[in-house]
Amino acid sequence: MRHLMGPLDFTAEELDKLFDLANDIEHNMAKYAHACDGKKLATCFYEPSTRTRLSFESAMLNLGGSVIGFSDAGSSSASKGESVSDTIRVISCFADICAMRHPKEGAPMVAASKSSIPVINAGDGGHQHPTQTLTDLLTIRSLKGKIENFTVGLCGDLKFGRTVHSLIHALMRYPDIHFIFISPEELKVPDYLTDMLKEKNIPYEEVIRLEEIMPSLDFLYMTRVQKERFFNEEDYVRLKDFYILDKPKMDLAKSDMLVLHPLPRVNEISVEIDDDPRAAYFKQVQYGVYVRMALILTLLEIQV
Amino acid sequence: MRHLMGPLDFTAEELDKLFDLANDIEHNMAKYAHACDGKKLATCFYEPSTRTRLSFESAMLNLGGSVIGFSDAGSSSASKGESVSDTIRVISCFADICAMRHPKEGAPMVAASKSSIPVINAGDGGHQHPTQTLTDLLTIRSLKGKIENFTVGLCGDLKFGRTVHSLIHALMRYPDIHFIFISPEELKVPDYLTDMLKEKNIPYEEVIRLEEIMPSLDFLYMTRVQKERFFNEEDYVRLKDFYILDKPKMDLAKSDMLVLHPLPRVNEISVEIDDDPRAAYFKQVQYGVYVRMALILTLLEIQV
Amino acid sequence: MRHLMGPLDFTAEELDKLFDLANDIEHNMAKYAHACDGKKLATCFYEPSTRTRLSFESAMLNLGGSVIGFSDAGSSSASKGESVSDTIRVISCFADICAMRHPKEGAPMVAASKSSIPVINAGDGGHQHPTQTLTDLLTIRSLKGKIENFTVGLCGDLKFGRTVHSLIHALMRYPDIHFIFISPEELKVPDYLTDMLKEKNIPYEEVIRLEEIMPSLDFLYMTRVQKERFFNEEDYVRLKDFYILDKPKMDLAKSDMLVLHPLPRVNEISVEIDDDPRAAYFKQVQYGVYVRMALILTLLEIQV
Repeated sequence: MRHLMGPLDFTAEELDKLFDLANDIEHNMAKYAHACDGKKLATCFYEPSTRTRLSFESAMLNLGGSVIGFSDAGSSSASKGESVSDTIRVISCFADICAMRHPKEGAPMVAASKSSIPVINAGDGGHQHPTQTLTDLLTIRSLKGKIENFTVGLCGDLKFGRTVHSLIHALMRYPDIHFIFISPEELKVPDYLTDMLKEKNIPYEEVIRLEEIMPSLDFLYMTRVQKERFFNEEDYVRLKDFYILDKPKMDLAKSDMLVLHPLPRVNEISVEIDDDPRAAYFKQVQYGVYVRMALILTLLEIQV
Repeated sequence: MRHLMGPLDFTAEELDKLFDLANDIEHNMAKYAHACDGKKLATCFYEPSTRTRLSFESAMLNLGGSVIGFSDAGSSSASKGESVSDTIRVISCFADICAMRHPKEGAPMVAASKSSIPVINAGDGGHQHPTQTLTDLLTIRSLKGKIENFTVGLCGDLKFGRTVHSLIHALMRYPDIHFIFISPEELKVPDYLTDMLKEKNIPYEEVIRLEEIMPSLDFLYMTRVQKERFFNEEDYVRLKDFYILDKPKMDLAKSDMLVLHPLPRVNEISVEIDDDPRAAYFKQVQYGVYVRMALILTLLEIQV
Repeated sequence: MRHLMGPLDFTAEELDKLFDLANDIEHNMAKYAHACDGKKLATCFYEPSTRTRLSFESAMLNLGGSVIGFSDAGSSSASKGESVSDTIRVISCFADICAMRHPKEGAPMVAASKSSIPVINAGDGGHQHPTQTLTDLLTIRSLKGKIENFTVGLCGDLKFGRTVHSLIHALMRYPDIHFIFISPEELKVPDYLTDMLKEKNIPYEEVIRLEEIMPSLDFLYMTRVQKERFFNEEDYVRLKDFYILDKPKMDLAKSDMLVLHPLPRVNEISVEIDDDPRAAYFKQVQYGVYVRMALILTLLEIQV
């Protein structure tokens, strides 16, 4: 039995198979409408995350399965002092597969070690959020037909953003990816990641302003810059507009450049961009459903 | 694609079709048991409302569809600052139709403008609650065979009650409706509504005591009088019993008069009335399910 | 129409039929996969209880039915002052059967009296939790092939634990059950229960330490000893380890003795016991699903 704990659990070859399946699902939904008849997904969300939870639920329902679960720790037995290990053993009696979100790093790993059903890490603290990374990769592959030979810009909070870290890790495995990191000094990508890039001879640049590198990008992955991450108010005021994607900045970009964002956004992408054909962040949500459908089928070893 | 924002979105003719469908559903439930197979309803409730939410969910399940959603804002991305416009675009990737309850007037309208799936306003602040009005009209039509030539009493808080305002608006479109408004001075129906009635030459009366007009009513629509709406304690104590429907007051009414209430009730209808054949407020709940089934089918353009 | 309010609502003969059905379900799940097609369970949980709620939901989904409901009072109409009687009348319009958990003793009974659908008491305050007792009995019968001629140890908080009280009541009806109550002085089983045992000439012992009676037990039913139940800190410190089941204590027990626990556990059973073949508390969770499936079928009068 297999779980999904981190974005590198699957080899690049296994990911190719997963994405092929996701694309087949995209184009032949009806074929999969009863693939999980009688199967049950448990969504165990120890902290709320509507988007991720509903994406999993939508995926399971699209496959003909059904869903049980809880959407915050308050309504779970955790409030009575039950361990994650006990909870997953109990959930194993109720469902066939489990998606777990937990504020504590490693909690889904502990659960997986005691589980008799496949466990999917749906986000554990600042640690991992592998289905977001799978979503990002599928979006890139589906919209460009490949994952290689791209200049990828990652913009915003590159220090604390787990989504960004996971995506960098995942993209390192593909050929000819050139990274450009766009962030304020305070929120630069951690050294362990740039060290890894150097070691693997993967080219990267670090810049402070988005404008200057817009023309060279094939992809721009936006994330939010939270005010509370800054050391002082002046820096925040001085820098914040550098990291807001608006029409003037988009005018500098290639005509086939694509903008991704893990959502929710607050104001880091101006709504005036939403109808630009290069804005791919809502398509990304749709790919998130397809990749979760493919993942559920793969972990349950169901072939259609 | 069509949404339901307010109770007057449908013409009287369209409502007739909707109610015909609801009545067919009532008498032939089995025929509709798979009408929405594979379809998903999203219930996006930014404030709790169990009855309305469960009524929608029951309706969708009766049609063979399934349900995802959230039941309060705390467990939604709204708490991370996401706009309703973004949320509905995301929900559009997860579901085929959405019922939205929101504390802010107009929020469902904003959502509808960005949505790629039909949106039903399931209540927006003090503004509109159109499926309640559809429920009220269907109940009247089903139990009396028509919506015309009635003396309709509306009793209680007529100043703040959005349910009552919507129902008055909706009934104005039917022939020979005579309105009697029963409320304390402080909670009279707003001027803009009585002005509209005058303009259309629709007869109405305003009275303070329920007893005196009981014998003339064909329908009595009860609502709650909340203590906090009164200017002073004495007025509340003096008036409150006027607006409690009990057996002595029912004895004054016609034998085929019907009592409606949007529920939940607290004490404005004595439980001793519940088994009176004229008490129609629990039947009304059942009609609420039928009308929501008809509405879902209509907005999804599914014909059975 | 029949409800389930307490663990003695069914006669011993009726229980035998229920357990036969549960065992048939266990061994022939596929046969029951569509038994409740089109039926809806409402889970009305006025206080959170994830395990119980998910067990009911899993049971209904296994039968092909679907589920609506709420998982705490905050998101229900109770917060608007609605009575349980009104709520169940409304729920009767939305679902075919209801499982109700309520902090107030007797609330499910009030609901049942006004309901037009079967109501299952899923726990009412410190009063009853009948489906837990049915689960316990089914586990015993399934793992031992009978419910008779056993020495049953009940350990921990025997004063306040409703699960224990219900199980004692239920076991009294079976032949040759010998009870051993293991608890601190402060948490002894109430007099009304020992009086009842004396009256029926059913043998029982009361002891303070678990070790001394381990060798004689056929079953050990563990419950938690909460610190706040003790009169003083010293007593708690002195006594708490007596009531923690660990490997040394298990070494004293028969090779076919079985350990049950209603869960969640905190530390009253050491995790080192979990893989002991005599640890039956996770199997018990699985039997809880089977017995609820059998119960739903029985109350809905569905025969497969």
